[in-house]
Amino acid sequence: MTLQTSETTNTLEDEGDAFRDECGVFGIYGRQDAAAVVTLGLHALQHRGQEAAGIVSYDGKQFFVERHIGLIGDTFTKQSVIDRLQGSRAIGHTRYSTTGGEGLRNVQPFFAEFAGGGFAVAHNGNITNAMTLQKQLQKRGAIFSSTSDTETILHLIAVSSGTQLVDKFIDAITQLEGAFSLVGLSEKKMIGARDPLGIRPLVLGDLDGAYILASETCALDIIGARFVRDIKPGEMVIVTDKGVESRFPFEKTKPRFCIFEYVYFARPDSIIEGRNVYEARKKIGTELAVESPVEADLVVPVPDSGVPAAIGFAQGSGIPFELGIIRNHYVGRTFIQPTAAIRHMGVKLKHNANKRMLEGKRVVLVDDSIVRGTTSQKIVQMVREAGAREVHMRIASPPTMSSCFYGVDTPEKAKLLASRMSIEEMADFIRVDSLAFLSIDGLYRAVNEPSRNNEQPQFCDACFTGDYPTQLTDHEGVDNVRTLSLLANNG
Amino acid sequence: MTLQTSETTNTLEDEGDAFRDECGVFGIYGRQDAAAVVTLGLHALQHRGQEAAGIVSYDGKQFFVERHIGLIGDTFTKQSVIDRLQGSRAIGHTRYSTTGGEGLRNVQPFFAEFAGGGFAVAHNGNITNAMTLQKQLQKRGAIFSSTSDTETILHLIAVSSGTQLVDKFIDAITQLEGAFSLVGLSEKKMIGARDPLGIRPLVLGDLDGAYILASETCALDIIGARFVRDIKPGEMVIVTDKGVESRFPFEKTKPRFCIFEYVYFARPDSIIEGRNVYEARKKIGTELAVESPVEADLVVPVPDSGVPAAIGFAQGSGIPFELGIIRNHYVGRTFIQPTAAIRHMGVKLKHNANKRMLEGKRVVLVDDSIVRGTTSQKIVQMVREAGAREVHMRIASPPTMSSCFYGVDTPEKAKLLASRMSIEEMADFIRVDSLAFLSIDGLYRAVNEPSRNNEQPQFCDACFTGDYPTQLTDHEGVDNVRTLSLLANNG
Amino acid sequence: MTLQTSETTNTLEDEGDAFRDECGVFGIYGRQDAAAVVTLGLHALQHRGQEAAGIVSYDGKQFFVERHIGLIGDTFTKQSVIDRLQGSRAIGHTRYSTTGGEGLRNVQPFFAEFAGGGFAVAHNGNITNAMTLQKQLQKRGAIFSSTSDTETILHLIAVSSGTQLVDKFIDAITQLEGAFSLVGLSEKKMIGARDPLGIRPLVLGDLDGAYILASETCALDIIGARFVRDIKPGEMVIVTDKGVESRFPFEKTKPRFCIFEYVYFARPDSIIEGRNVYEARKKIGTELAVESPVEADLVVPVPDSGVPAAIGFAQGSGIPFELGIIRNHYVGRTFIQPTAAIRHMGVKLKHNANKRMLEGKRVVLVDDSIVRGTTSQKIVQMVREAGAREVHMRIASPPTMSSCFYGVDTPEKAKLLASRMSIEEMADFIRVDSLAFLSIDGLYRAVNEPSRNNEQPQFCDACFTGDYPTQLTDHEGVDNVRTLSLLANNG
Amino acid sequence: MTLQTSETTNTLEDEGDAFRDECGVFGIYGRQDAAAVVTLGLHALQHRGQEAAGIVSYDGKQFFVERHIGLIGDTFTKQSVIDRLQGSRAIGHTRYSTTGGEGLRNVQPFFAEFAGGGFAVAHNGNITNAMTLQKQLQKRGAIFSSTSDTETILHLIAVSSGTQLVDKFIDAITQLEGAFSLVGLSEKKMIGARDPLGIRPLVLGDLDGAYILASETCALDIIGARFVRDIKPGEMVIVTDKGVESRFPFEKTKPRFCIFEYVYFARPDSIIEGRNVYEARKKIGTELAVESPVEADLVVPVPDSGVPAAIGFAQGSGIPFELGIIRNHYVGRTFIQPTAAIRHMGVKLKHNANKRMLEGKRVVLVDDSIVRGTTSQKIVQMVREAGAREVHMRIASPPTMSSCFYGVDTPEKAKLLASRMSIEEMADFIRVDSLAFLSIDGLYRAVNEPSRNNEQPQFCDACFTGDYPTQLTDHEGVDNVRTLSLLANNG
Repeated sequence: MTLQTSETTNTLEDEGDAFRDECGVFGIYGRQDAAAVVTLGLHALQHRGQEAAGIVSYDGKQFFVERHIGLIGDTFTKQSVIDRLQGSRAIGHTRYSTTGGEGLRNVQPFFAEFAGGGFAVAHNGNITNAMTLQKQLQKRGAIFSSTSDTETILHLIAVSSGTQLVDKFIDAITQLEGAFSLVGLSEKKMIGARDPLGIRPLVLGDLDGAYILASETCALDIIGARFVRDIKPGEMVIVTDKGVESRFPFEKTKPRFCIFEYVYFARPDSIIEGRNVYEARKKIGTELAVESPVEADLVVPVPDSGVPAAIGFAQGSGIPFELGIIRNHYVGRTFIQPTAAIRHMGVKLKHNANKRMLEGKRVVLVDDSIVRGTTSQKIVQMVREAGAREVHMRIASPPTMSSCFYGVDTPEKAKLLASRMSIEEMADFIRVDSLAFLSIDGLYRAVNEPSRNNEQPQFCDACFTGDYPTQLTDHEGVDNVRTLSLLANNG
Repeated sequence: MTLQTSETTNTLEDEGDAFRDECGVFGIYGRQDAAAVVTLGLHALQHRGQEAAGIVSYDGKQFFVERHIGLIGDTFTKQSVIDRLQGSRAIGHTRYSTTGGEGLRNVQPFFAEFAGGGFAVAHNGNITNAMTLQKQLQKRGAIFSSTSDTETILHLIAVSSGTQLVDKFIDAITQLEGAFSLVGLSEKKMIGARDPLGIRPLVLGDLDGAYILASETCALDIIGARFVRDIKPGEMVIVTDKGVESRFPFEKTKPRFCIFEYVYFARPDSIIEGRNVYEARKKIGTELAVESPVEADLVVPVPDSGVPAAIGFAQGSGIPFELGIIRNHYVGRTFIQPTAAIRHMGVKLKHNANKRMLEGKRVVLVDDSIVRGTTSQKIVQMVREAGAREVHMRIASPPTMSSCFYGVDTPEKAKLLASRMSIEEMADFIRVDSLAFLSIDGLYRAVNEPSRNNEQPQFCDACFTGDYPTQLTDHEGVDNVRTLSLLANNG
Repeated sequence: MTLQTSETTNTLEDEGDAFRDECGVFGIYGRQDAAAVVTLGLHALQHRGQEAAGIVSYDGKQFFVERHIGLIGDTFTKQSVIDRLQGSRAIGHTRYSTTGGEGLRNVQPFFAEFAGGGFAVAHNGNITNAMTLQKQLQKRGAIFSSTSDTETILHLIAVSSGTQLVDKFIDAITQLEGAFSLVGLSEKKMIGARDPLGIRPLVLGDLDGAYILASETCALDIIGARFVRDIKPGEMVIVTDKGVESRFPFEKTKPRFCIFEYVYFARPDSIIEGRNVYEARKKIGTELAVESPVEADLVVPVPDSGVPAAIGFAQGSGIPFELGIIRNHYVGRTFIQPTAAIRHMGVKLKHNANKRMLEGKRVVLVDDSIVRGTTSQKIVQMVREAGAREVHMRIASPPTMSSCFYGVDTPEKAKLLASRMSIEEMADFIRVDSLAFLSIDGLYRAVNEPSRNNEQPQFCDACFTGDYPTQLTDHEGVDNVRTLSLLANNG
Repeated sequence: MTLQTSETTNTLEDEGDAFRDECGVFGIYGRQDAAAVVTLGLHALQHRGQEAAGIVSYDGKQFFVERHIGLIGDTFTKQSVIDRLQGSRAIGHTRYSTTGGEGLRNVQPFFAEFAGGGFAVAHNGNITNAMTLQKQLQKRGAIFSSTSDTETILHLIAVSSGTQLVDKFIDAITQLEGAFSLVGLSEKKMIGARDPLGIRPLVLGDLDGAYILASETCALDIIGARFVRDIKPGEMVIVTDKGVESRFPFEKTKPRFCIFEYVYFARPDSIIEGRNVYEARKKIGTELAVESPVEADLVVPVPDSGVPAAIGFAQGSGIPFELGIIRNHYVGRTFIQPTAAIRHMGVKLKHNANKRMLEGKRVVLVDDSIVRGTTSQKIVQMVREAGAREVHMRIASPPTMSSCFYGVDTPEKAKLLASRMSIEEMADFIRVDSLAFLSIDGLYRAVNEPSRNNEQPQFCDACFTGDYPTQLTDHEGVDNVRTLSLLANNG
């Protein structure tokens, strides 16, 4: 039995054909107009989720909560909204989607008033034992007001036998499995925490003495804040008026950061775990040019995500980089095809081939990944219709063969093209003259590792290898579908 | 420390000068398009609260929830909204205000998924030990997602040691103090319950075999349903496919229905506890004419609430009934006076004197009650400016001297005119030639009682007498302000 | 060939069963915050049209225009809207409907920039040769941007050979046939004008030295302005800094004010042509009691329009006046019945019978008029189902047998019940024990005339008699349908 | 004296620092669901104006009009909107801004009902004698309902002495001065016309037999239509059921297409007058590399408009092309900085420097043009703060020294940086190590001309040279300001 809600998703035709960015978190402690600063930080993090956002602030006496569906620039820049978010401490969250949840009820940060005071939390990641914990909590009388796994964290804090908030918080997060980069706000503290594997990013910044926690460095740049350091995997930081205190409440393990952040999720100008994302992508392109060279006239990126790898491929191969496909600028916005007749026309809503560039040419198309393959099919067809003589597809990652359970919205395994076809069959399916993916070792080399350490892999690469670094407790029982839907909801 | 939220109230200048209607509840079990029927029922109950509404339906597999701020006719009549509320069982709630709560989070019905299944509840009344219970629940780890006392009921059910839902429900409601008429919906049952004193109304109806629970009979009339009977004070009814089962889980006490429902809250065409509200109001007017006669030319009601009593007064006194004050029709809708200059003009937004009727006349004004007295002042001044020679005010109830803690939004005691002035002072304050209130015994006679039984009063008349029929647990401690704000929130 | 537009009407089922109020106009000259005052004046005139409104103000340098669809209290009370309407002179218009026109394009006042300066005009009434004039104007190259006859007036001014605005305005209005009460605003003047027959009302008021033009006196009362006098039929007043100048540009005729304004359109507290509307309605009821007496237990008004006549009938007959039918308060707002199943339930959205009052009683129902008869049918059925022993219908006007072409939205003649049935057939159709209409002479007596002067009728009573006081130029040709639709658009 | 209106513009801080795209037009004749096809065409043309759009369709009997403010994908993809636009013929318009006009009143297409039937017109360009014509028309009695010069065209048609629509249309357009690419729709015909100089583009397409007129070929591509040919400068095409008829009503002159369309306005994938826009921009970059070489480590485009020229510069110079500046993806949408404190932080809302790429490097920045210089200042500062050792700015056009009067929104001359500073002073102002603009001959070479023919220039390059190819009638008198504001309104 499930609860159905009043909100529906705008499913763009192509939306199922990409790994969807997860969520972004941002918090600041000790800065006048804290909420306004959070607004800017979230704005810079919208590539990680742009469909809803929330901010919780605290002014020394009261917490203030705002949650809205829509782009930050549309919802949180109204004077009246910002004016209601009083105080010099605030945390915020931006998320991909409100699918499957009762609209605003699932928008973070979540807030609860405990016996000992108020607490708000925002989460990037996904808890893989959330359903199991939720059932246990329900059995002892807990009531859930959302379908988000983040609420589970609040309940674990609420029922903890610890006496201090920090103890309760540790008690709660040490029961979690999965991926989580958390930012919390209590009456006295801002808390940041990263799961022991450090699957999702979280960084510490400083703005004229005010501490900042953010998913990526680009959110520090937008406000001119200084990058202090990455929060370490398994680390918990407690920000108070006295400064930053660091703890390591988890058993020590070898970290495994999500390598797909470098391939696609993170912003190119961010620096994560010491690596610049743009450079990593360019190196991916160069590796690809080395691993799977091809004789051609042009290197053409699939906009916009394929651009850095295409530049790298062009530099590595000596083949000129050209904008052979042009984006229809405003299409990021939903565009519903109004009539059936129109839908059957097969219109080019997202991209257009730059015919003059492609006519008679041997083209290398560079894209970040292939998910279902339907988008690739359309793009290749468009490039061929524009007159390309040969089309060679080069993919800036290994084949994606498994679902992600760590805060990324992926189709189920069976819908992943690579899980049911060989590379040759895929080349046939998307109708290219040649198709090549980057090898897993090539990907590791692009992020400056000599190769994948198969004993102790340096990254989480489960979407490519099926090698999940945590238990998937919820996933092993019968609740399969619900778990998957949870994945879509959080992050 | 409290949580402040994103919604603000539209406070009309005059709004503080009335006892505000509480909430209305409606449920139906066993009728196709149940939610559409609930929509109509709530529409007929909007005099009990018109600022927000919610409906939960169940289709045998899933619960569906919709909550909206605004008039039913604006929010719940959209095809898409009704289409989402599948099923042949549904309950709904309409409420006065979203003040002080986080917007939609406080709109009922509330829904929770227990270990044993889903359950929704809608509430008219107010729990006077809700804060105390909430603190106890928080201490054992409960998280509240609203500031409504209705959520407390869900938590009590959740933590009950009972094994069946009905037992848990009984366990929960027997811990409550205060006023409550509840309608609940589980996967198998619709449940109705009234507190042992039966402070708020609740009736049972029948629509071609489908059972209905509603706050007033007027909600049965709108859909052509048959009135079966009042739910009895302290009664709990369980509606299933097999019919209606009745239980009496509370210790037996003498009922004390809210007498103010007859004075003002209920709709004139409703029949409550065997009495027609319109007839009661007319008799109030007749009693008033007998108790406080006056020589005059016209009886003029303050629209619209004073009309039935004025008809009764006119019939009792032989003085002609006339519409000496005309309502500005659309003013029920918020009208904010746009500039300071205009605000100082003292414009007549709500009413206008019908000058030709009033010029040179001795006028008896009949109104239902005096709260702060500011509205009466304005009305009297308007009638005098229209040329009335004498103005005599007759009030269709005793002086309101105490706050209500049973689901009615009243100003604090100190702001009630009658709590700080004698009748003579009040007459001076509102500048009338004479002022009279109905006596408490007169009021009891109007509802067919011989007089008030001061040992065992037949009704709750605490707003007139300060004689509260239940404990006011929350109210005795330090949390005074929060309690009062709770009152505004629930209903 | 016609232009279809993007707006559609919300046609309530019952809406076709009433004569629809026309428009209201209001202007003020010489008062700070003029537009805010106009907002209040229009608010008091919304019984004449409540679906859209507009205001034009002038600050000595610029004209400012705002037009909005919706209630004044929703649209024109926003600070930002009022702030944009600078200046100490402003005129406004409130209208019934935007049917058939391109939404805001048909909302008045209309504004045009002539070679000699800007001019705005607002109109209550209907021009019966507008189509003919429009075609002539189009032939010489005029372009119309609306389907409103008011724009025709602006074009006539624009092409006038007069040299001064006042001369051009006179040139324009003397070409018009039909009903018009106009308020205009130029850079130097506010102009008011009433057609030679004075079919629609227009009054002059004074607010601390600022002159006001308004459709009814109730719009003066709301702001505490002094009623100076009615603008005379055929009079044109020119308000400037020097005061009010009066002109009579039309050939003199005997006035014929719309008698239906007394029956239904005007507000009861207004005083029109020396008569108080409420008193007129009460006298209508008294006349009716004399003309068509009946033995009965109760006089029950059909809310709200039947109330004053029912009071008169009760006073005239000695039968008690009772609220036997209760209005569903919020139903003035559109309530769309959400599903077909519900629509077939025959729900009582607008009214409910007060059963206890009606059971076993002989009831006199008093209503203002019968249009199509469908509403009367429903009301009678409801009263019978409530247990009334006899139902006698008394109508506060003669049978409405002809369409209005003077600014009132009426069904075509064939749809008027009285045009195709005898009174006996009508009584059968609505299933009453007896039915009586007021006689035409009875109606004239109620407004203090000895009787109708059939040679020179004192009023326009065309809807009862078919005796139209002006030519119906557009109506005599082939453009029948378009003319009717024009009627619906203006006012 | 002017009319002020209810709409205000969202002025982004930077918006004044770009030449604003003009308008886009699109029409189709003879295709089911014509309006839906127009929606797609306009979607592809939104780089020419994205703030408002309108469509007029004709179904053989009626015209249907829809105009909305907002992105096509938000406003015109609603089923209900498209359903109202019946018929197999339709024209549409998308525009930059609604500034200075009464909101929707200025949104095109404009429609008028002439004595002979209905006619709609959409316009890209600007009429430089519109004010003069408007005054002449007002003197003979014309009333204007907008502040758009497009309405002037309709009035000229309306007052023409011609007997057939085509004659009237020719009569009208031969009185116009300035730039205009028009699409018109009558009951029998779709008409396209381009001014004698062909300043703005207009192309003819074919979709399975249905004729299309569109501003650019990219609007044909999106629906898979075939490009037939450019409409010739001074050509008028009349599309009927019999096909396309071509006329040349103007005196023959040498065409002068707007060269800035190649630099910035048109979409890179469009082919205009035989030249691919992307290729032209790349050649501009190559020419720039030849004319103004510099020793450097990276070529960095200012996103997004500088990308093709930067690719060309990189290929021409051998210096690597790198994404050294990253766009904040969603910033195309308005983002208002909520508090003063935040505004003073100097946040990087639009772009962020990719620090790792820029640190210690000698950077060539490539941008399309410099308008006020404020954006360039900010970008350079950001690049320097990121650690660039040297910053060399290369501009893909000559200095813009004069305003455009042909449908482009440009600041007044005095605000153009190049009109008041030497190149050296500009370099100082934006703080670069070197600054170079493309020469005017270099620009001509990039579009495949040997050089500018100063006797008979091949293009309109007035913004660079001040050499206006038409009279500027309105601009020579006193109405300077109004004329400029007109420019902003049309397009």
